[in-house]
Amino acid sequence: MTNLTKLGEFGLIERFRKAIKLDSTVVKGSGDDCAVLKFDRKNYQLFTCDMLVEDVDFTLKDRPYLIGRKSLAVSLSDIAACGGLPRHCLVSIGMPKKTTLKFLDEVFSGMLELAKKYKVNISGGDLSRADKLVIDVSMLGAVEKKKLVLREGAKIGDIIFVSGPLGGSIRGKHLKFTPRIKEARFLVSNFKINSMIDISDGLSQDLGHILKASRVGAVIYEDLIPLPAESAGLNDALYSGEDFELLFTLSKKEAKRLTRKKKMNFQPIGEITSAKSGLRLINKDCRDIEVLPAGFRHF
Amino acid sequence: MTNLTKLGEFGLIERFRKAIKLDSTVVKGSGDDCAVLKFDRKNYQLFTCDMLVEDVDFTLKDRPYLIGRKSLAVSLSDIAACGGLPRHCLVSIGMPKKTTLKFLDEVFSGMLELAKKYKVNISGGDLSRADKLVIDVSMLGAVEKKKLVLREGAKIGDIIFVSGPLGGSIRGKHLKFTPRIKEARFLVSNFKINSMIDISDGLSQDLGHILKASRVGAVIYEDLIPLPAESAGLNDALYSGEDFELLFTLSKKEAKRLTRKKKMNFQPIGEITSAKSGLRLINKDCRDIEVLPAGFRHF
Repeated sequence: MTNLTKLGEFGLIERFRKAIKLDSTVVKGSGDDCAVLKFDRKNYQLFTCDMLVEDVDFTLKDRPYLIGRKSLAVSLSDIAACGGLPRHCLVSIGMPKKTTLKFLDEVFSGMLELAKKYKVNISGGDLSRADKLVIDVSMLGAVEKKKLVLREGAKIGDIIFVSGPLGGSIRGKHLKFTPRIKEARFLVSNFKINSMIDISDGLSQDLGHILKASRVGAVIYEDLIPLPAESAGLNDALYSGEDFELLFTLSKKEAKRLTRKKKMNFQPIGEITSAKSGLRLINKDCRDIEVLPAGFRHF
Repeated sequence: MTNLTKLGEFGLIERFRKAIKLDSTVVKGSGDDCAVLKFDRKNYQLFTCDMLVEDVDFTLKDRPYLIGRKSLAVSLSDIAACGGLPRHCLVSIGMPKKTTLKFLDEVFSGMLELAKKYKVNISGGDLSRADKLVIDVSMLGAVEKKKLVLREGAKIGDIIFVSGPLGGSIRGKHLKFTPRIKEARFLVSNFKINSMIDISDGLSQDLGHILKASRVGAVIYEDLIPLPAESAGLNDALYSGEDFELLFTLSKKEAKRLTRKKKMNFQPIGEITSAKSGLRLINKDCRDIEVLPAGFRHF
């Protein structure tokens, strides 16, 4: 009998996706960072949701302010990954009866600070009782049609970039990361970005999503992968999960322009290849190793 | 120290609402069935979310098909309460590792059936691990500006109607109810509806929301309140919770027109009065009793 662990999160999503019928107002349904919906002549609407669960995505030992902050930040990161700007969100919270008002106020102040910083309206929500704390944020954004970026546009020869150091998620970065809205808007406003995703499950798994959606392969170079000062090493960057940096590809010509600008912290880490070579890593000894997409697994 | 039980769900929402700053694209934020957002020249966008939690909103003894069905139906009911049509939704599911695929497939088929019936796109979602099953659906709808109805427009002299029998929630109606989209569209397309809400916490509590938002009072008549055949009596209708019938008010003139049409199952149950008389019930013995808004409490 097929169980969840065998099928996994992405297998499940695939299974359900096939059964869903969508009308022509959906430009892109499930299978990217956001759903993309028709809006007006110039813009699409972006629609995304992320559920955070106690003891999976945070623990009660974490600062409540950071829990609230993260609950908005993960959706902001999804909007960024499609090149958009956030507009509105709703916050659903399930929580135990014993939750203190002080705790909730701090969770809420973390949400408010990000909402203010990124100019997103907390337009409503829902409160419910639950045994453990669970926060689901759904967010609406907008993106000019010309600036929309999906996972599926990577082309052979594209250079692969990341927006900052990878790894460090489990040492606290997953609670404190900066959603890369500013960086994403800079990119889509000044360059032709062929594909983009935010790294929420580790570099190998999320690069894997781009490769699958774009039907291409990739080679990445260990020497080029930026690690934070306190890095636990390459495996941390490849598999550790919630970096929430942008991972994107653009043509060599555009990549040169980007590099010359010396803006922000974009780093090239490899190149898009044909699908048949899969995902390969050239390590420090110049060995060519096959990387199997793996990262955080819910099931 | 203030705790959640003392403050309650609505006290909490009020507390947070005061701290939130909204820009001019939000026509109506938290405090109605849906958030109302600017969309285009003729239409507003409706945005709502509802979280269902195992052992609060359903149990694992319920048919999984009905659990999935309910998770969409409650949001459809919110869209109906504002006079709109549903368009898109996202589904966030938190679930234990041991969840079987058969169970999930059935939950999902309940969602799909309602999505098909009410022409709403399941445009995406999020899957997460959790100790207990939790489903949060966020939904987008559209309503013509002229047809938007909120809780806040009830006027003294308005007749109060419901769209069907009240009570029976705990005997299964809460899982099988029909979201009143068709009825709501009939109403807003043919009549001037002054205020509307869906009954999700019991008649007294939800009528209380209309009275508070509209700064009015009401008198309702026990003899007029429609009870289902298997009713447990008046208290069931007043306080039992999830009927998901529409509760709305319109002028006497409009009420006469509605009654003459003899369409659907609308029933007058009382009249809007001035705020100072509060919510009063005239019982079968013609006694005038004060009703305190009460119903399902999360905390």
